[in-house]
Amino acid sequence: MGKKHMMEQLQEASRSISPLCVGLDTSPDYLPDSIIRAVGSKTQAVLLYNRELIRLLKQNDAAGCVKVQVAYYEAMGVEGMNVYSQTLAALRQANIISIADIKRGDIGATSEAYALAHFSGDFEADIVTLNPYMGHDAIEPFTKYFVPKNKKSKDSSIADEVTEKRHKSAFILLCTSNPGAADIEMGELQSGDKVYSLAGSIITSISEAFHKSFKNEKCSIVGAVVGATQSSQAQEIREKYPDVFFLIPGFGAQGGDTSTIQTLLTKAGGVVNSSRAILCAWTKDKELSEKRKAGLLCISDIAQSALRAALSSKATLQSLMPTQSTK
Amino acid sequence: MGKKHMMEQLQEASRSISPLCVGLDTSPDYLPDSIIRAVGSKTQAVLLYNRELIRLLKQNDAAGCVKVQVAYYEAMGVEGMNVYSQTLAALRQANIISIADIKRGDIGATSEAYALAHFSGDFEADIVTLNPYMGHDAIEPFTKYFVPKNKKSKDSSIADEVTEKRHKSAFILLCTSNPGAADIEMGELQSGDKVYSLAGSIITSISEAFHKSFKNEKCSIVGAVVGATQSSQAQEIREKYPDVFFLIPGFGAQGGDTSTIQTLLTKAGGVVNSSRAILCAWTKDKELSEKRKAGLLCISDIAQSALRAALSSKATLQSLMPTQSTK
Repeated sequence: MGKKHMMEQLQEASRSISPLCVGLDTSPDYLPDSIIRAVGSKTQAVLLYNRELIRLLKQNDAAGCVKVQVAYYEAMGVEGMNVYSQTLAALRQANIISIADIKRGDIGATSEAYALAHFSGDFEADIVTLNPYMGHDAIEPFTKYFVPKNKKSKDSSIADEVTEKRHKSAFILLCTSNPGAADIEMGELQSGDKVYSLAGSIITSISEAFHKSFKNEKCSIVGAVVGATQSSQAQEIREKYPDVFFLIPGFGAQGGDTSTIQTLLTKAGGVVNSSRAILCAWTKDKELSEKRKAGLLCISDIAQSALRAALSSKATLQSLMPTQSTK
Repeated sequence: MGKKHMMEQLQEASRSISPLCVGLDTSPDYLPDSIIRAVGSKTQAVLLYNRELIRLLKQNDAAGCVKVQVAYYEAMGVEGMNVYSQTLAALRQANIISIADIKRGDIGATSEAYALAHFSGDFEADIVTLNPYMGHDAIEPFTKYFVPKNKKSKDSSIADEVTEKRHKSAFILLCTSNPGAADIEMGELQSGDKVYSLAGSIITSISEAFHKSFKNEKCSIVGAVVGATQSSQAQEIREKYPDVFFLIPGFGAQGGDTSTIQTLLTKAGGVVNSSRAILCAWTKDKELSEKRKAGLLCISDIAQSALRAALSSKATLQSLMPTQSTK
């Protein structure tokens, strides 16, 4: 850790470990009924699956980071939020960089509360995703956590107490992977740019504000979410934000194409997320077909299946990386 | 309940009960230290304050609805989410319309999970706030809950099970009350409109899709967040969306002006939110100054102080409503 900011740490992990980000969007619907019955609780089954998969991903250097989609845990209520907290704890323990996919953003005072919520305490993650619709003051409260403060700092705000050890960072939504990205993000501005470039300006201005602190940086301190499905925009976006590290969803179940991913992985690069295609790999795994029919699948079976899918995705993604930056 | 959709129920409550929406953005920082020490737990102190304030608001018809800002509960971790759940339960029990200020929005499958999370189970609320940046498919999964399904429906999805009793609704962020609203929401489009009008198009298309089901409706099925600080836009927005009911933040601590509120309360009308000015009214309450100095404040003192502030705000807001629609 030390002098490198969190986004640079992630950039290094994407090159030295894996460009794959495994998404733990773990709905109980993604688990075999037989496992849920055996464990006796949907939430506990999710937690056991997450923990076993995290262990295997670490052991096999399959993922450069893991993204936890909070929506699936909120959908399981208070006990789900406990599982969310335990999942983040397992990632910290495994020393895997965690991305909390929360897509928050609110007025300043409220974003302060969200930053406290997701950069400290029960729900502490290394990186969060943020929604820029409400503008700069929806994002800024998170930036206080980007550089750990000296413990002896005179400013004794809560932020100082909680950030003394770890750098934090954020991915701001730029251009997402879903069909609705066309509605607002792709709106045509008078300037000739698209609406997402206004989010890009927020990213640029935050990065510039931190530039003095990190003179040797190889990527800007805050990243951007750019969907693998944005084939027509990929080249332009990659060139417009050469130093910005990308979180690239849309690979796998959402069907993003490989040439778009290849483009997005140049310059500062990025990590490519896959969630359902990995979590649900057991449903299509020929090695498990007999056990599946017999209702005999256990957590370790489906986690091994997810690991195989992750290693296969890792190999695909590594082949798409520019040659100078692959391991 | 019955045939009226949730937004029309709220419109009626704003006129027959109160145009004030009390915001339970209850940070433990808003409570006297003496109370937290006496209760022995920050989270429990927040819950006790919320419950007592909800009881008083109901007893005195002070609020047409209550908005719970989830960020402050997330900041208290798993136990905070339990308090969030208990607060929503207290609102249901008091039969006060609840607005969960969650500002969520994600790709379709994830928004399905958010809708399940906030329209059923531990975190069930009547209305949610949504962020439109990611477009129509970030919003649509919530609309399945707007009209309660017949229990005998052949489609036995989870949504059917949970929405059989209550209508749900949503406020979509249009034009917020914070300084950052200028960054993206106010961007100038090639068409001459502002970026927020793209969010407005999503509101309009959802409302039209439901129009057949509610022929006698007096307001569209989905509402919009329009800040009381948007003085230059208020008239235009009110005229552009005459049937849309507004959630109007920015009154009180954020300093929205009364003429803007007056404009926004015409046509379909709206509810005006006040959070900190009410929750922290005890800090400026002359009646409590001696007790405050002596460290003798109890929950009931600060809740009574909040109630007085709420009743005063209600009177101010009622004076700003068009005469035909006040009680």
